[in-house]
Amino acid sequence: MTPDWNRAARGIVERCRQLASYTEEPGWTTRTYLSKPMHDVHRALTDWLTPCGCEVHIDAAGNLRAVRAGDGPTLIIGSHLDTVIHAGAFDGILGVVMGVALIESLDARKLPFAIELIGFSEEEGVRFGVPFLGSRAVTGDLDDRAIALMAGPIREFGLNGAELPLARLKPPLAGYLEFHIEQGPVLEQLGLPLGIVDAIAGQSRMEVRFEGAAAHAGTTPPRLRKDPLTGAAEWIVEVEREMRHTSSLVATVGRINAQPGAPNVIPAVATMSLDVRHPSDSIRRGAARRLAEAAERIAGGRCLRLHMETRSDLPATPMDPGLTDLLEEAVRAAGFPVHRMASGAGHDAMILAKHVPAAMLFIQSPGGLSHCPEESVREEDVAAGLSSGAEFLRLLERHYV
Amino acid sequence: MTPDWNRAARGIVERCRQLASYTEEPGWTTRTYLSKPMHDVHRALTDWLTPCGCEVHIDAAGNLRAVRAGDGPTLIIGSHLDTVIHAGAFDGILGVVMGVALIESLDARKLPFAIELIGFSEEEGVRFGVPFLGSRAVTGDLDDRAIALMAGPIREFGLNGAELPLARLKPPLAGYLEFHIEQGPVLEQLGLPLGIVDAIAGQSRMEVRFEGAAAHAGTTPPRLRKDPLTGAAEWIVEVEREMRHTSSLVATVGRINAQPGAPNVIPAVATMSLDVRHPSDSIRRGAARRLAEAAERIAGGRCLRLHMETRSDLPATPMDPGLTDLLEEAVRAAGFPVHRMASGAGHDAMILAKHVPAAMLFIQSPGGLSHCPEESVREEDVAAGLSSGAEFLRLLERHYV
Repeated sequence: MTPDWNRAARGIVERCRQLASYTEEPGWTTRTYLSKPMHDVHRALTDWLTPCGCEVHIDAAGNLRAVRAGDGPTLIIGSHLDTVIHAGAFDGILGVVMGVALIESLDARKLPFAIELIGFSEEEGVRFGVPFLGSRAVTGDLDDRAIALMAGPIREFGLNGAELPLARLKPPLAGYLEFHIEQGPVLEQLGLPLGIVDAIAGQSRMEVRFEGAAAHAGTTPPRLRKDPLTGAAEWIVEVEREMRHTSSLVATVGRINAQPGAPNVIPAVATMSLDVRHPSDSIRRGAARRLAEAAERIAGGRCLRLHMETRSDLPATPMDPGLTDLLEEAVRAAGFPVHRMASGAGHDAMILAKHVPAAMLFIQSPGGLSHCPEESVREEDVAAGLSSGAEFLRLLERHYV
Repeated sequence: MTPDWNRAARGIVERCRQLASYTEEPGWTTRTYLSKPMHDVHRALTDWLTPCGCEVHIDAAGNLRAVRAGDGPTLIIGSHLDTVIHAGAFDGILGVVMGVALIESLDARKLPFAIELIGFSEEEGVRFGVPFLGSRAVTGDLDDRAIALMAGPIREFGLNGAELPLARLKPPLAGYLEFHIEQGPVLEQLGLPLGIVDAIAGQSRMEVRFEGAAAHAGTTPPRLRKDPLTGAAEWIVEVEREMRHTSSLVATVGRINAQPGAPNVIPAVATMSLDVRHPSDSIRRGAARRLAEAAERIAGGRCLRLHMETRSDLPATPMDPGLTDLLEEAVRAAGFPVHRMASGAGHDAMILAKHVPAAMLFIQSPGGLSHCPEESVREEDVAAGLSSGAEFLRLLERHYV
């Protein structure tokens, strides 16, 4: 009997809405690392997974771990359970709930591999400004600072920090599969339900500060001004030009501040953030370098002082070619168009991919919206993802038999 | 005996420093409308003026009024006693203290005109966001809203608001003379001690808001962005171009804000202030109109919504040609180079000029600095202003004899 994927998708959306009601702030969905409502999420997921024959426990980092036994290596399916502040109902948690539905659809079918579904406790980095705490705990990538930050919440949540080493993944591993909303407008524009991620873009973050001299807006003629905000404006135009001239590059100034910020005072200081992403590290770094040079040129021409600070320089993460080909085959077998794309956002798959062959499937984000209450998914796209996931399990089964 | 203007100038600077110590906030100079330290300022000025034979009183608006009797009409010399927050020691009060020194220099000399020295109680608009309360009280230009705002402070200061009508100037009037620091860098650049103000520039203030759509900085490709900050940057570059291409125009974006303001989010809204000034109203309004058109063009080309709001549109105020010629003659007679200029900042002279022939003399501002603790004057420039003022009184004397 072929499962009714549309009906399953409807159930997934309902479950995501239910989980979104477990929040730190009534009227909104806000659920940071090991906050109280995370207990409710764990309970609900456990209630759904136990009847499918899964062994469920919460590891020392607060990740939900559900194991469906099988002969052979383990396929991990996962995504994260935490949210941003005032979030939507699907970012992260959709991938976990789709994993539940996939396991449900298997009934008692014996597979030549085990499945471990992981709901990561922390991906967004809201609580401590440090992202990926959950996935870094299972891969062993936590540093001492992160472990120190986690200690209190782990204790308060009723867990034992001394058992963190036990949270590590148990080989042999067949791979890692993550379903996630796209969080961008590309699939909607193309009229596609699904996107196969072939790489997660690398990211440069910088803070750029032009310093001039505050002066009276009425009494300071043009040639005697050292206005850092006009320099900043010229540079933002340059950032946009660089983005438009470099295929697949995104470059964004999201934050700007001019001090003292009075209408009748030429600013003394203008500060901006810069975020540059590209699937190729060399292209991204080249763009960041040209933008730094442009800032220097602009500062020089305007007698401004320039301070630039690199806040992060994260390399791109390619997904596993073999597993991604398998995912593409699965999407095609399920009857959906294949579209490969880079992910501009970071995901748990980025952390897992360093240790396990990883593959990732995007579900269309209507309006490109995410990280806001209006974030949504279409049921037919969730059904498309689900049936593709089922095909993926079938192809993997054939691979191991 | 010729007075020793250098010695007098040294005394003026000392007195200004003394008055700067009367402040609402220890360690800074902050003295808003009818705040407590204004009592100390009144007392000191009264102590200096009474021995010169002046009758001194505080009018109902809190202005210090000192009358040196004489046959014929009254020459008013004035500037303001209030300050901005964390001010310097010279903006405003220098003009009053120079008036004291001029009166002192006259000794018992009989003049064919009376002199009234006014220390205006309010010019900066700090306390209520409404400037020129002191000068508007003496010209009868206060509206009901301003009078209502002033009522409490007037009572608390020990004055009688019912007597506000008695604060009006008593004709016949010979004119109004104001000494003030330039608050800009022009005289220093030209190596000149003094500037003769021929007009106070008109001013347009606008708020400009571009609205786009917030989106993920990593997942939203260039062609699908509606980034209001890149539109704002393009427009700020346009504002600067307009300023550079229009002689004597100043145009400033002093405040900018992008929301939500996160490094990894394309902003939804960018808001800016615009301040445009020019001695010619038609040139100023033409520039403001072209900048509004540029904002419309930019918004249209980028699918952004545009909101523009005119916050103020103050016409330029010419100084009196006859009295200004007399001031120029006085500066020349005192042996200093003549330089005519527009004032980009507003002054009490702007209010007085609608009712009395007004003239204004700028004293060089080292570094162009004002409205900050580093604000200063050079003693030799104060001496130049003082001896020019003495020549002005002599020329006026000749005029009335």
